[in-house]
Amino acid sequence: MFDKYQYIQVNLEHLKKNYLKLKSFLNSNKTICSAVVKANAYGLGIKEVSQALYEVGCRNFWVTNLKEAFLVRCVSIESNIYIFQGINSYEELEVIKENNFIPVVSSIEQLNLINLYVKDKVNIVLNFDTGIGREGVQIEEIKQLNLEKCKIELIMSHLSCSEQKEHFLNKEQLDLFKNIQDLFVDAKFTLANSGGIFLGHEYHFNMVRPGSALYGVNILEDNNDVKMLNVVEFYASVLNRKIFYKKQYIGYNATYKVNKGDKVLIINAGYYDGYRRILSNKSMVYSKGYFLPVIGIVSMNMIAVNANALPESLFKKIKSVELIGEKITIKEIAKWANTDQREILTNISSSSRRIYIK
Amino acid sequence: MFDKYQYIQVNLEHLKKNYLKLKSFLNSNKTICSAVVKANAYGLGIKEVSQALYEVGCRNFWVTNLKEAFLVRCVSIESNIYIFQGINSYEELEVIKENNFIPVVSSIEQLNLINLYVKDKVNIVLNFDTGIGREGVQIEEIKQLNLEKCKIELIMSHLSCSEQKEHFLNKEQLDLFKNIQDLFVDAKFTLANSGGIFLGHEYHFNMVRPGSALYGVNILEDNNDVKMLNVVEFYASVLNRKIFYKKQYIGYNATYKVNKGDKVLIINAGYYDGYRRILSNKSMVYSKGYFLPVIGIVSMNMIAVNANALPESLFKKIKSVELIGEKITIKEIAKWANTDQREILTNISSSSRRIYIK
Repeated sequence: MFDKYQYIQVNLEHLKKNYLKLKSFLNSNKTICSAVVKANAYGLGIKEVSQALYEVGCRNFWVTNLKEAFLVRCVSIESNIYIFQGINSYEELEVIKENNFIPVVSSIEQLNLINLYVKDKVNIVLNFDTGIGREGVQIEEIKQLNLEKCKIELIMSHLSCSEQKEHFLNKEQLDLFKNIQDLFVDAKFTLANSGGIFLGHEYHFNMVRPGSALYGVNILEDNNDVKMLNVVEFYASVLNRKIFYKKQYIGYNATYKVNKGDKVLIINAGYYDGYRRILSNKSMVYSKGYFLPVIGIVSMNMIAVNANALPESLFKKIKSVELIGEKITIKEIAKWANTDQREILTNISSSSRRIYIK
Repeated sequence: MFDKYQYIQVNLEHLKKNYLKLKSFLNSNKTICSAVVKANAYGLGIKEVSQALYEVGCRNFWVTNLKEAFLVRCVSIESNIYIFQGINSYEELEVIKENNFIPVVSSIEQLNLINLYVKDKVNIVLNFDTGIGREGVQIEEIKQLNLEKCKIELIMSHLSCSEQKEHFLNKEQLDLFKNIQDLFVDAKFTLANSGGIFLGHEYHFNMVRPGSALYGVNILEDNNDVKMLNVVEFYASVLNRKIFYKKQYIGYNATYKVNKGDKVLIINAGYYDGYRRILSNKSMVYSKGYFLPVIGIVSMNMIAVNANALPESLFKKIKSVELIGEKITIKEIAKWANTDQREILTNISSSSRRIYIK
């Protein structure tokens, strides 16, 4: 039933090595390395990824919502599972308490829900907005916080520009976070996402929360000391090989013209599979030493690539190509697609078979 | 477990009406209306969509691959199920024959596979490239075709510019297809996709193959005679409501600045959910009469919207917003995202709950 040449390979060995490498940057006496496995572990499979990270010692996981929290609970009964979306109804509160999940409280409204319904105490992460704007209690609201029904496991904030080392907001957020630290003397603190880890020890506090770096997203300039190993490879198969009898257009809207004699491979992946339409006439695929340019508009389930570079024998036998992997990196695809590497990762369709390398 | 305010609603009543409307454009004595349900029915759910279309008389379905063919077979034992990717291995051929699926043959290589392995005959669709370039046997190869092991159910080709009514390639492809018609006197023919249907009866032949129009994609200028009903609505819930105490940035990379007193809603959908990152600082969401602009960078699981337009009481109570639907059309989103409507449709994540209106 499955096409044996189309699949997404997730290298859990590399994932583990990335986790351990990130951990090696920390002061191990003070800072714990957790893992952000939200959004189905950035699209790669939350159960498989959490299991692999558990095997190398990770015991703190961050997820988007309750559904994901349960998937991580299946992997580990004793781990701390933090839910970014927090508590948004009485029903959620009940389930969270019963299962010892730890909600992130990002607003007074969420805190009120706790104060209204909880009899004893609930473990929480208290989230402050030090500059991301998006979520988190504003610092001006600190005095309004009624925390008597909460046991604060962690105080967190989130960096907005951590991938731009020199951005003035990093230092500004750090200083604000330190001010908060002074107000909660017994608490533990967490600020750094992947980018924050590379900003130095000052940003690490009691826990760091890498996400994208675990999955092989390399933000910094290529430097072996901080280079993360690639985790995802995406292969698709050759559906058809054509040698054109005449000059003609190829693909929707006639955006590219092939010449007589041009060799073209039709590959069975398209924007439905997460191979974005913006890559039309821009990107390349790779096979056996050759980089082949995508020509014409990316279709829903197909792309065409110019295969003139391939020797005749290879053209006839080639079964599959790499769309994303060691040769065509996520970073390169993101550049061609004019977006962030994480969007490429999370949009690889779950319609393709996944193979996990352990 | 589920967030009751976040879901994708698929209106199967509208889908059925769209099918019947498209059918009404055909000469019913001659032309059958099939349905393209490939790519999981453009992301909407192949089983539910096929079932609904079956209920209004559709008996001809086009799918991407074997896996999808089986899903449609669960809906209808007697329907014709055409597989676009055709036969690509001996194993597939066996399964296709056993289950009476009808493969599209798009190359001599695929035909050779049939000739090599089939003892009796296999029903096929023979696909010619009249100008799409992508897939299909080239016209110059007609004399090389050995069709003795095939029973040709249909001869097809695919239009490349059907959505541009005046494009010269439409007529050119039509003429080439008619030439092929002269060579296969007893066969039945199919050329038109959704766009082709609106090019007129000449393009309809024995069967049309609408896909996107069924799902509410409106290509033509708004004209009630040809307007398809909207099928998809995408709602997300309000995670947090903020009134800012000071001027500050919001979202990653500090791309937007809110003012003191600005009201902002944080919505729990982001690019992981198919709400594309390119919509950052560009698109709008809708709720109860108000259009609210997305501000800052779209995050993986969140967006922020400026809610200054909302009356105080509504700001406090609002539970969810429309991301895509009657007010924020797929067409509008595709324009903001600078892509095709189909990419918006097929990339709405399967992570969101789907509700089917019957």
